[in-house]
Amino acid sequence: MDRRSFITKAGIAGVGAAATGLAAPAVAQGNITWRMVTTWPKNFPGLGVGAQRLADRVTAASGGRLTVQVYSAGELVPPLQSLDAVIDGTAEMSHGAAYYWQNKSPALSFFTGVPYGMTSRELTAWVRYMGGQELWDEIYDQFGVQGFLSGDTGTQAGGWFKNVLTGVDSVKGLRFRTPGLGGRVWEKLGVTVTNMAAGEIFQALQSGTLDAAEFVGPYNDLALGFYQVAKNYYFPSFVEPGLATELVVDKKKYLDLPADLQAIIRDVAQAEYDQVASDFYANDPRALKTLIEKHGVQVHQFPESILKAGAEAAKEVMTGLRDSDDPLVRKTAENFIESLNIVRTRSKTTDGAFVNARENYFQI
Amino acid sequence: MDRRSFITKAGIAGVGAAATGLAAPAVAQGNITWRMVTTWPKNFPGLGVGAQRLADRVTAASGGRLTVQVYSAGELVPPLQSLDAVIDGTAEMSHGAAYYWQNKSPALSFFTGVPYGMTSRELTAWVRYMGGQELWDEIYDQFGVQGFLSGDTGTQAGGWFKNVLTGVDSVKGLRFRTPGLGGRVWEKLGVTVTNMAAGEIFQALQSGTLDAAEFVGPYNDLALGFYQVAKNYYFPSFVEPGLATELVVDKKKYLDLPADLQAIIRDVAQAEYDQVASDFYANDPRALKTLIEKHGVQVHQFPESILKAGAEAAKEVMTGLRDSDDPLVRKTAENFIESLNIVRTRSKTTDGAFVNARENYFQI
Repeated sequence: MDRRSFITKAGIAGVGAAATGLAAPAVAQGNITWRMVTTWPKNFPGLGVGAQRLADRVTAASGGRLTVQVYSAGELVPPLQSLDAVIDGTAEMSHGAAYYWQNKSPALSFFTGVPYGMTSRELTAWVRYMGGQELWDEIYDQFGVQGFLSGDTGTQAGGWFKNVLTGVDSVKGLRFRTPGLGGRVWEKLGVTVTNMAAGEIFQALQSGTLDAAEFVGPYNDLALGFYQVAKNYYFPSFVEPGLATELVVDKKKYLDLPADLQAIIRDVAQAEYDQVASDFYANDPRALKTLIEKHGVQVHQFPESILKAGAEAAKEVMTGLRDSDDPLVRKTAENFIESLNIVRTRSKTTDGAFVNARENYFQI
Repeated sequence: MDRRSFITKAGIAGVGAAATGLAAPAVAQGNITWRMVTTWPKNFPGLGVGAQRLADRVTAASGGRLTVQVYSAGELVPPLQSLDAVIDGTAEMSHGAAYYWQNKSPALSFFTGVPYGMTSRELTAWVRYMGGQELWDEIYDQFGVQGFLSGDTGTQAGGWFKNVLTGVDSVKGLRFRTPGLGGRVWEKLGVTVTNMAAGEIFQALQSGTLDAAEFVGPYNDLALGFYQVAKNYYFPSFVEPGLATELVVDKKKYLDLPADLQAIIRDVAQAEYDQVASDFYANDPRALKTLIEKHGVQVHQFPESILKAGAEAAKEVMTGLRDSDDPLVRKTAENFIESLNIVRTRSKTTDGAFVNARENYFQI
């Protein structure tokens, strides 16, 4: 009998023996505090708020048996050392995005979002029902951690541009802040890609160091004030069609928890996937309305020639991962692409077709 | 001090006093079993399976302190008496769809899905961030119950038709199985609408009593074998752009639970909203592939004239609810329409625009 099944059986026996009444509180026999480091600034709309709420929900659902204490970016470790903090035992949990750890495995990008990849809904279908979680586990097992999806921004905004874009030629040479695989796609379009932290973007746009920048979407971007220095806001982000956040947990410590606490962490992370996405779907369009009506922002769709060139570049990036020398990266990319080609048929013929029909015919 | 805050404080004090070690199981002092009735047949793909899984997850996360026992449609009460069973105390929980209870309040349709209404993602934005839950609570408070979203099918299929549809004239006089507000929309298009239970549809199509039928989508419809008697499968369902399921709980009994068990029910229901949707987004397109490749089903999009006439009819239905004599129905409809007109801008310019771009330019 392994440790976990022993705990579960003892727990159930205990419940029966101690049953005394309906509304009496549970008395926990172990009272644990875990540290959660995050890659987000404190109170960062959607994502930082989500990390704190996830922690609070675990604490509440466990009746305080597992209290999660949140350390925002930089409070305990620098944001981009959050995963390492869990690996080296500085913290038990990390809340961030898997694609920050591409240096550990390029395959991790798939669990956040890749150019011309999956929407938030497609991503959970892949992770939960088409082999995604198993591949993610195989990658993270190498580091002794367990990953759970914990939120999603939905499709992001494409970016803020000082000038109107007339076609793919008009982006050549632009100095554009856009990180990760998305940056590699824009680079193939002739853009000069730079990366910088959120707090530096505004100044760089203002001083002329940048011609353009993308960050998340209206909800976050409004708070950072980009509209003051760049008036053209382009949609959609074809390089971040969804951006999933992750909860990472020290796997050994996780498996040592009683089964009910393991279940609570899993359930709360999944509930938060829905909660964070709901937050963005409600508050992005409200923020966009403010940007347009109050701040005179011009909203545009990307010209077709950019969408098309972006698709060709994204295909190069994705097939590059599929042709990787690392068997686990190759296997993940193959499974992702195969799954994408299944789930996209639903998005096109059903959900997407409905949204198009509603736009064409239904005004109220 | 009210009962709940007393329990919470006592619980936390207990945790501190009894702390003895890390991995020891919690010993619950109350061991409760709750009955959950459902409107779904046992093992019904997506929805019936989801009800059982939700119950199991509550049992697991509570370490057996709250065990939920599931009764499928008809086992304890007939499916369409599930809500009444909670109201009259026969069961503590019900898993079904709010629009089944339109006789209690027509406003309940909004919490499941209405013609040309919200997608699954838009619905959670409304319910969780734009006033939807508060309105739902106001409606259900009249009956002493609490509703939680607990799943979603995503946009459904439009229906199975024996003949190819050439335009809005080609549906006049057709005998079509489609219930609820969707049925009222189709009626306005000249269709002869009938309702019948899932188990009767196949035979009615075969005998010629029906010319057409809609049920859910590929995942469920494949199991019922409609492809054997009608070969034309139309997309998308503009009358069910999303179909949310609900968990309903006896409100007094819910509020009498310790705070941690209340949290667990809430968290698990929300996690299941994501889980059920993921199931449909993974398995609908797989089932559709089987229907096409193995059973020779012809997949079509509805002709534009049907989508257009459907939109006009849906607008009549929705404005009818907004003009209701019942102030709570009116208030719910007004809030829903206002919220829809906000969230749809994101679906159009961002998520929907991405799906369209991917279809147009990205093949891999």
